[in-house]
Amino acid sequence: MIERTRIADLAARPDGPVSVAGWVETVRDQKKVQFVVLRDESGAAQLVNPATREAEDGDDAAQIALGITNEISGLAHGTFIHVQGTLKQDERVKLGGLEVKVGSLEVVSAAIPETPIADDSSLDKRLDWRFLDLRNRKQNLIFRIQTTLEHAFRTYWVERDYIEIHTPKLMASASESRAELFQLEYFETTAYLAQSPQNFKQMAQPAGFGAVFEIADAFRADPSFTSRHATEFTSVDAEISWVESHEDVMAMHEELLVAGFTAVKEKYGKDIEEVFGFEFVVPTAPFPRVTLAEARKIVADSGYEVVRADGDLDPEGERRVSAWAKETHGSEFVFVTDYDASIRPYYHMRHADDPTLTNSYDLLFNGAEISTGAQREHRVETLTAQAVEKGLDPEELGWYLDFFRYGVPPHGGFGMGLARVLMLALHEPSIREVTYLFRGPTRLTP
Amino acid sequence: MIERTRIADLAARPDGPVSVAGWVETVRDQKKVQFVVLRDESGAAQLVNPATREAEDGDDAAQIALGITNEISGLAHGTFIHVQGTLKQDERVKLGGLEVKVGSLEVVSAAIPETPIADDSSLDKRLDWRFLDLRNRKQNLIFRIQTTLEHAFRTYWVERDYIEIHTPKLMASASESRAELFQLEYFETTAYLAQSPQNFKQMAQPAGFGAVFEIADAFRADPSFTSRHATEFTSVDAEISWVESHEDVMAMHEELLVAGFTAVKEKYGKDIEEVFGFEFVVPTAPFPRVTLAEARKIVADSGYEVVRADGDLDPEGERRVSAWAKETHGSEFVFVTDYDASIRPYYHMRHADDPTLTNSYDLLFNGAEISTGAQREHRVETLTAQAVEKGLDPEELGWYLDFFRYGVPPHGGFGMGLARVLMLALHEPSIREVTYLFRGPTRLTP
Repeated sequence: MIERTRIADLAARPDGPVSVAGWVETVRDQKKVQFVVLRDESGAAQLVNPATREAEDGDDAAQIALGITNEISGLAHGTFIHVQGTLKQDERVKLGGLEVKVGSLEVVSAAIPETPIADDSSLDKRLDWRFLDLRNRKQNLIFRIQTTLEHAFRTYWVERDYIEIHTPKLMASASESRAELFQLEYFETTAYLAQSPQNFKQMAQPAGFGAVFEIADAFRADPSFTSRHATEFTSVDAEISWVESHEDVMAMHEELLVAGFTAVKEKYGKDIEEVFGFEFVVPTAPFPRVTLAEARKIVADSGYEVVRADGDLDPEGERRVSAWAKETHGSEFVFVTDYDASIRPYYHMRHADDPTLTNSYDLLFNGAEISTGAQREHRVETLTAQAVEKGLDPEELGWYLDFFRYGVPPHGGFGMGLARVLMLALHEPSIREVTYLFRGPTRLTP
Repeated sequence: MIERTRIADLAARPDGPVSVAGWVETVRDQKKVQFVVLRDESGAAQLVNPATREAEDGDDAAQIALGITNEISGLAHGTFIHVQGTLKQDERVKLGGLEVKVGSLEVVSAAIPETPIADDSSLDKRLDWRFLDLRNRKQNLIFRIQTTLEHAFRTYWVERDYIEIHTPKLMASASESRAELFQLEYFETTAYLAQSPQNFKQMAQPAGFGAVFEIADAFRADPSFTSRHATEFTSVDAEISWVESHEDVMAMHEELLVAGFTAVKEKYGKDIEEVFGFEFVVPTAPFPRVTLAEARKIVADSGYEVVRADGDLDPEGERRVSAWAKETHGSEFVFVTDYDASIRPYYHMRHADDPTLTNSYDLLFNGAEISTGAQREHRVETLTAQAVEKGLDPEELGWYLDFFRYGVPPHGGFGMGLARVLMLALHEPSIREVTYLFRGPTRLTP
């Protein structure tokens, strides 16, 4: 590897010789001294160079110094450089309390001087140049947080002997509904892109895997342009055996989120405060729970009338229930449970004593839905009847219904949008800000 | 949760009352005693029930015992049951040295008695009924090993501050080549499924992410039916900044594999020995390295003539180089380096002193290629020239070439097929055995 100390590691080093490498964030080219803010993947530091503006012929040292000065004067924003220098811890330096005096400097990869985006560029413009947009400390931090969050999720599961699965995204039929489905020519037939791993993570149940998880792509040919929809997104999924109801799924789900948020807080709490300007809150389990019926009442009591006829919450309704949970329970999370069967898929189990309600939930976080979970119907006759009732063709579902014909334990699980969690955890206005490369109806590049 | 002790945890429990749940693997229904082998996600245990073949009217205890006996007699293979009983550690019991005397038994989900596959079913038939096939201890173990391997990979990276990325699988153009590309209608335009995350993991380099990884789906419309090809597969990818050559990538790559294999050996070494019948070997770094030119000589010296004109190895050639590494270095892994530029993609960096060779490698493991890695060409003029030389249109690649115009560190990385690693680590004959749900030209279900 090219020898360098990561900038974040400079603070722990003694004064003296050091190599650093990264890209030029700013150059302050003063008459007597030059300052370069150098950034790498870990942070930013100030380089300092006493300017040499002229040099006599034959004065080799002065010629070299002049060369460095001119090199720095000509540095374009974004240029990647490798610097040998002298580290000095100096608490007067605002940026990190240290600086590196330039000894020698190599331009590794020069940038075109005209940067196509600026701090005030529109989100769409920034996404056009996402690889430059991501150079910001904030964007970098977002994806470090995502890394920590996911790894904590997986570690939670792995420590409990869950099996990680990779379900196929190419399917012979729809996984959820006929709507919003991408289709493609697949040799002599037609394939569809999975809208969720629903069928296949359930398959792990009759397969005797016990508990499984997957963090992977899902696809929806969804023509909407809201701040929380994408045509391709990262879905966080789990499915567990031997549940008694959706309550068991919720108990795991909230523990998982506490584990994930704890890891983020420990590693990046201070950075989040500096960059996003708020204190990152680790939730406490159990999260408050309200039934959908109660949630409707909370919304109505708050003076808002939900503008949908099907009894589900709309985005404003979700915000009101979330606000209620924050106010009365001090919780950013709230489970809304027992959704009407009419607005849930056929594979959700229904109440034994009231088939109009399901053993299901949505999880709301800071005002919006991030996840849907449920106990699944595992009795094949009931499952088939519910499919027919929803207008589905059991013939076409035959391969899926087979999963339930050779023995299957009671089970349940959830699917959760990773970008939604990040967006709401970091108070960002759109999932586009927290997606590496957003995909929407009019966005297929870069 | 439904109360139960996982079968693997029974050995650590004292004798006495216990609940277990799982599916019926076998029933031995003898006249005086019944044995059921019950399996769950963690293992198998023997249930025992003293048979009660008749009961007098009015003798409630005997009636109940008769009921249980009849229930057991009628248990179909695969039926999921929940049992309350009495645990007895007894080393005379071959299966795990313990048994559970049945107190009460509930059929949770009855299986159709006719199982569609048997131990001697063809692989294709087994894949038709994959959810039943996966119930075998061996298949279960494969996916536990996969889970451990992946988690160890990710932990290796996360501990070194790599960023996990989720690159889009929907692209506006080909990521690797025009061949073997799935395409789909995408609103008003056409999208392609990513053949690899190549372009987008490289994007993380000018984005200043430093080091990134991704374990995700990749798609190839590859019509081949070999034991090591699939149309959809899980690709293990990493890309790191500030490399001096492909050697830096290889050093990380071998460390990663050692970390992964160490974790597998620790957790499942004993199980692998029992189920697969061989001792799982943790490799030692550094792995042997030979140039492709040397590899060709090794193959020729072994008396085999490679049947390709382009200078690359063929499968038999790979086997011979692998055999050589095993023989002369005692290593199951071998890096073949410095591939001819003519058989490498345009984005591989070429030797400074010999542009016919690249800073690249393939990693062979137990006779077959599992990975390709390289230092990337990051100088945009050279990259563009190499693309043109390969017959590509720089116009179409414009968005990718832009990544290199605004500053980019020297970098390199690799892509590795997860299923190939597993197949070769477990001496399995096909990736179909180690893929949760295989996808091939004629296989899109279940």
